[in-house]
Amino acid sequence: MKNHYGNPSSIHEEGRIVKAAIEDARKRIARHLNASVGEIFFTSGGTESTNMALKCSVRDLGVQRIITSPIEHHCVSHSLKELAKQGVQVDYVEVDHRGHIKMETLEKLLLIKEKKTLVSIMHANNEVGTMIDLDAVAELCNATGALFHSDTVQTVGHFPIDVSKTKISFLTGGAHKFHGPKGVGFVYINGDNIIAPLLDGGSQERNMRGGTENVYGIVGMAKALDLAYENLEEDIVYIKSLRRTFLNKLQENFAGIKVNGDVDGRSLYTVLSVSFPRTDKSDMLLMAMDIHGISASGGSACSSGAEQQSHVLNAIGVDPSRKTIRFSFSKMNTMEEVETVIEKLKTIIPTRVEA
Amino acid sequence: MKNHYGNPSSIHEEGRIVKAAIEDARKRIARHLNASVGEIFFTSGGTESTNMALKCSVRDLGVQRIITSPIEHHCVSHSLKELAKQGVQVDYVEVDHRGHIKMETLEKLLLIKEKKTLVSIMHANNEVGTMIDLDAVAELCNATGALFHSDTVQTVGHFPIDVSKTKISFLTGGAHKFHGPKGVGFVYINGDNIIAPLLDGGSQERNMRGGTENVYGIVGMAKALDLAYENLEEDIVYIKSLRRTFLNKLQENFAGIKVNGDVDGRSLYTVLSVSFPRTDKSDMLLMAMDIHGISASGGSACSSGAEQQSHVLNAIGVDPSRKTIRFSFSKMNTMEEVETVIEKLKTIIPTRVEA
Repeated sequence: MKNHYGNPSSIHEEGRIVKAAIEDARKRIARHLNASVGEIFFTSGGTESTNMALKCSVRDLGVQRIITSPIEHHCVSHSLKELAKQGVQVDYVEVDHRGHIKMETLEKLLLIKEKKTLVSIMHANNEVGTMIDLDAVAELCNATGALFHSDTVQTVGHFPIDVSKTKISFLTGGAHKFHGPKGVGFVYINGDNIIAPLLDGGSQERNMRGGTENVYGIVGMAKALDLAYENLEEDIVYIKSLRRTFLNKLQENFAGIKVNGDVDGRSLYTVLSVSFPRTDKSDMLLMAMDIHGISASGGSACSSGAEQQSHVLNAIGVDPSRKTIRFSFSKMNTMEEVETVIEKLKTIIPTRVEA
Repeated sequence: MKNHYGNPSSIHEEGRIVKAAIEDARKRIARHLNASVGEIFFTSGGTESTNMALKCSVRDLGVQRIITSPIEHHCVSHSLKELAKQGVQVDYVEVDHRGHIKMETLEKLLLIKEKKTLVSIMHANNEVGTMIDLDAVAELCNATGALFHSDTVQTVGHFPIDVSKTKISFLTGGAHKFHGPKGVGFVYINGDNIIAPLLDGGSQERNMRGGTENVYGIVGMAKALDLAYENLEEDIVYIKSLRRTFLNKLQENFAGIKVNGDVDGRSLYTVLSVSFPRTDKSDMLLMAMDIHGISASGGSACSSGAEQQSHVLNAIGVDPSRKTIRFSFSKMNTMEEVETVIEKLKTIIPTRVEA
């Protein structure tokens, strides 16, 4: 920021240096996803990316019907609420108690072809971690002529994604989900889908998104994604071992714990959603943990502060009288931290021995 | 970014620290504009802010007609093109050869009140610097019941703005225009105008703008605005002296120069738009300057690369056979740099003596 402050749209040297940095970032991100460079557009984050994919598909690609799930992030569900007001039909695929979508319902819905259809189903749920089979959903969409958008904010940088193999119309990423800066993201738009901008303005992003670019964010995002994919396989093994140890110790030490999602099945390895039995202290669990230096979440950070149980936990039938906590794990966590959290939890909630 | 990486929506300590930093930034920005804290919303920049003001006014406030000028930034003009497709009536106020809008036309247009009207006219033109009388336009809008949006991206941090005195519905700022980071901005929304989000998602920005916040951008923007207003009067005197000296030396040394806009009237003091006479070298003028280390612009950076003369220069009747250059001045420039640019220009274009 001190040395390269040129406006990337300026044609003088300061500008060209910065422009080159942005285009280098685009190239690297495209390479990680096996996309064409021209299919990656920078945005202010996953939310803008999803708004763009959904709203511009309706406006520019003739989409009149969107099939989705009841456990999407609010950037999808609230965009769909807005689109429904404009007359777009929204159909839902049910999820089972682990958060898996019912593929046979999706198939049935996709066989109804009166209206141009887009499917918007997230790759991995942000609260409980359950994942769809991205290839299977993509194949189904392709076979029935539907467009397919997936909110891949939780999985970019954490799973290999190859859009040359998985035929998907739109996918979205947010840098801070893979240790990049906040307030920057991208949308992959398959070259077949020609949409106009959501944000009208200058000719940035090849006329697809007005606004002077968040240069430092974009450069930081590309670097973060490089680092995320650098040792992915090792990182996965390590993070899984942290989560497994934590879960084992939870179950050893505390009675009546329920794990949400499909922890040993198709799931993020980075989150663990645990429902603790109701006690007189359980309402204050998150706050007590915070006082002990444990930073966990009641669900999605985007909705925290809300007192009710989330739409995700409701949809998969989690008992709202229990207290559900989402623990998150990254390659920057240590086994020592896992031990510490267990020890602290013992001082907050009743252990097996006490119970 | 190293020390305060919490998600501001998280309720744990790391999150709360970051949330407090964002709210502190909001308070300081609001104070600079004499706005209420609840009237400032953070966005990805001026373009998103303007898109939000215009598109949400149409969707949520019943605006059916927008009065604008032919010299607006593309974030306004392209948004209006999009809104026109949706049936919004767009009326234009003419500008004179210096870029001043014709107030009597505006008044006439505002007296037609069949449709709920919004006026969108920029405070200062980004290419030639000409400014509107913000108070006079605001008064006219208030007297006739029209909403008023002004693209103030060029003036926030460069002129005092007091929304308690100037009754305006929406104004927009972009941090990089006052030496803040790129990719972050804000929109001031007068508390009377209740709109819904442009970007649907989480409950950030009090449910007005989904997406994890660009924390570092927001904090940097507030700091930049503090610095911008710290010694504003002195800075203005200094920057004006740079520009005046530069203009005098230009006129001394080069024949046939024309200055666009209203340099001694109501104008930005930070830009100087100069049209050079056509010579066999004038087409390459910008490139030649760049080779000599002079970073200037052919117009708006957002549109550079485009070969034609800008819509702004066309609207004020600048001869397209001349080569127009926008020189920009800031408190970080020096009188030495002014001298250097003149000396370099002497090696590029014919001087009075030669001509």
